[in-house]
Amino acid sequence: MALIVQKFGGSSVADAESIKRVAKRIVDTRRAGHDVVVAVSAMGDTTDELLDLASQVAPVPAPRELDMLLSSGERISMALLAMAIHSMGYEARSFTGSQAGMITTADHGAARIVDVTPVRLRAALDDGAVVIVAGFQGFNRDTKDITTLGRGGSDTTAVALAAALDADVCEIYSDVDGIFTADPRVVPLARKLGHITAEEMLELAANGAKVLYIRAVEYARRHGVLIHARSTFTSNEGTYVLGEGMKAPRNAKGEIMSDDAIGMEEPVVAGVAIDRSQAKITVLGVPDVPGSAAAIFTLVAKTGANIDMIVQNVQSAKAGRTDISFTLPKQSAAEVAKALTAAQDDIGYENLVYDDQVGKLSVVGAGMRTHSGVSLTLFEALSSAGINIEMISTSEIRISVILRDTELDEAARVVHSAYGLDGEVEATVYAGTGR
Amino acid sequence: MALIVQKFGGSSVADAESIKRVAKRIVDTRRAGHDVVVAVSAMGDTTDELLDLASQVAPVPAPRELDMLLSSGERISMALLAMAIHSMGYEARSFTGSQAGMITTADHGAARIVDVTPVRLRAALDDGAVVIVAGFQGFNRDTKDITTLGRGGSDTTAVALAAALDADVCEIYSDVDGIFTADPRVVPLARKLGHITAEEMLELAANGAKVLYIRAVEYARRHGVLIHARSTFTSNEGTYVLGEGMKAPRNAKGEIMSDDAIGMEEPVVAGVAIDRSQAKITVLGVPDVPGSAAAIFTLVAKTGANIDMIVQNVQSAKAGRTDISFTLPKQSAAEVAKALTAAQDDIGYENLVYDDQVGKLSVVGAGMRTHSGVSLTLFEALSSAGINIEMISTSEIRISVILRDTELDEAARVVHSAYGLDGEVEATVYAGTGR
Repeated sequence: MALIVQKFGGSSVADAESIKRVAKRIVDTRRAGHDVVVAVSAMGDTTDELLDLASQVAPVPAPRELDMLLSSGERISMALLAMAIHSMGYEARSFTGSQAGMITTADHGAARIVDVTPVRLRAALDDGAVVIVAGFQGFNRDTKDITTLGRGGSDTTAVALAAALDADVCEIYSDVDGIFTADPRVVPLARKLGHITAEEMLELAANGAKVLYIRAVEYARRHGVLIHARSTFTSNEGTYVLGEGMKAPRNAKGEIMSDDAIGMEEPVVAGVAIDRSQAKITVLGVPDVPGSAAAIFTLVAKTGANIDMIVQNVQSAKAGRTDISFTLPKQSAAEVAKALTAAQDDIGYENLVYDDQVGKLSVVGAGMRTHSGVSLTLFEALSSAGINIEMISTSEIRISVILRDTELDEAARVVHSAYGLDGEVEATVYAGTGR
Repeated sequence: MALIVQKFGGSSVADAESIKRVAKRIVDTRRAGHDVVVAVSAMGDTTDELLDLASQVAPVPAPRELDMLLSSGERISMALLAMAIHSMGYEARSFTGSQAGMITTADHGAARIVDVTPVRLRAALDDGAVVIVAGFQGFNRDTKDITTLGRGGSDTTAVALAAALDADVCEIYSDVDGIFTADPRVVPLARKLGHITAEEMLELAANGAKVLYIRAVEYARRHGVLIHARSTFTSNEGTYVLGEGMKAPRNAKGEIMSDDAIGMEEPVVAGVAIDRSQAKITVLGVPDVPGSAAAIFTLVAKTGANIDMIVQNVQSAKAGRTDISFTLPKQSAAEVAKALTAAQDDIGYENLVYDDQVGKLSVVGAGMRTHSGVSLTLFEALSSAGINIEMISTSEIRISVILRDTELDEAARVVHSAYGLDGEVEATVYAGTGR
């Protein structure tokens, strides 16, 4: 008998029928003899609807009250889910974030989990009940106020529960089958991975892959939680996110799964991710003296924008001048451009070019550490396809390039193929977004 | 400066516009220098919608989970209301039933308040904040579970808060101006009462008047809370519910209001109530021996039905036999009739007549204690109108009669007039139900 944490997102519990389907899935797990703890999100669009109501009564809602409001969404879904399980003849109890002992910082809307004290959950499990916990929410011990965890909060709730309860696995359900070598909507021959390392998953998620949230994967890596990303709609094995200190995946009989069973192929490259959320700013003719770059990035930092890639040309066309390019999220770009323009005379640069027609392609693989020539494959593939590279950045296990956004999809397909990632058949693509 | 508790029902906070209107009303009170604590119901039809969802996932929802579900409704309205007040420049904090220290029995769906420990509310008031509390809900200390108070729960929440905080007045807002001498939709010349005694209010509410819930009035009487029933839509004075040990109503300047100001007319009869929710069962030809009535009402009690009026004829048409009639809520009548029919041979009665075409008219007035001939006016008025009385029952301050339901409205008008209750102009009738 194992202790299994299962997380179901909003689209999995969007209406009464979906809730009953999820309840049946949970009951099946319970019936197989496992203890089950479930983290659940608010139903479908509930959170957006509540945000809309909030904006109607207050242009800038008080953060404490916004958290109080939004946390009602999971309260609804978790109570309905517990009822549905109960009516199938199994004991089930729902718990709010505070009842579950999900203790967070006091940062309303973006609270971080600081401790989990699942006393009531353990008692309910000891009573043989399925435990349902509200995702996305917690409470602060000092203010005694309700908090929410922000984007990806329910995944983090699930992983934190798995860590606190020493669960055997944390199953994160969504409308896709697991982690793919690329987004199947862009790369039809993308394959589902049997496993991926946590560090690869983090790089993919940070560079545009949507199935798992970075925060949850980080939490899992830090606390040794085995994540199994799988589909709500099938009973297929999904993708295991493995890492040091994590438990080994087990099959239905409780046996440790063989390398074959989880697709332990160990490729050099795990996957290809694309990201259209970035814009590029190029500052031309910057005086090539110490302190110029610092002046620019001090200004950018003051706006709160997160810089992603930075490239400084070794030599500009003009003597004594250099060009600096960087990428940042599109929504921050206008403010940054404005701040830089206002400081043109102070910094002494000649011109500024703003470009939001760029896309980023990233190739991620832990095997890059030990294999040489990985980047060469990328450059050759893009070159053969006539696709121009505008910027390059690398980490230990990742190579990212900035391209024209119109060429991004084709680039993903040729690169995916060049690394030998193509499957033999097209992947089934669900209507969903993967969340 | 006073401490004022205000209660707003679901129709007062049905949408964003209504919430902003209520927020403005609260801010006006705060601006006048008063401390304000608000009890609020769920928005509009939220509770019914949640009940509907529950019935879709589980035919008989688990009571603990149903309370968890339903309690989310007030969480939404209270957070929105706090936001709206906040955005008007006033500090406001919302609290769930458990945060507010509303401690109840563990009877899910019908919990009773056993204690109120408003530590956090006092702290928020000390900080100068408007306090918003979720109506209808509390929690049990032993199980640590969320409970709901059942029908009329938010009124009871408001009164319990007023008692625990020693508030100067508990204002219960609805879509009518206050307590009327009769339902203005039936009796157009009904007048708004400036005041009414708690015992009169209890008799009116128990006999069909809808503006205040019995539980809340009982709680107010027991704990000496002054209730002021008034309209959300006007700033008119409403009706004060007075009683022994209660504080005196005060005007906007904080002065105790004169008898004139609250309409201290002390009539013999305070009002006329009608009730169409009852059915009548007559058991004919019951053996006139000790124990027959006991046998019948033991059976009725077993079904859980609440008997209202009972009449036993002194003498039946047949020697040695008697007829027994009683009234009870329509929704209990079928089950009771079935139980009695099954026991016909045991009890030995001859026939059973079920009648749901009856209505009850009640005249209530504390002055009945000291004035004689009050019932005579009722009987004469009905007789003059050619309306037949089927059953009569009385309490110290009430006379009730059972009539054909088709004659109930006319009866209310003639009786209202006979007791001199008619006003000079027709009352404004709002679309609402008074709740």
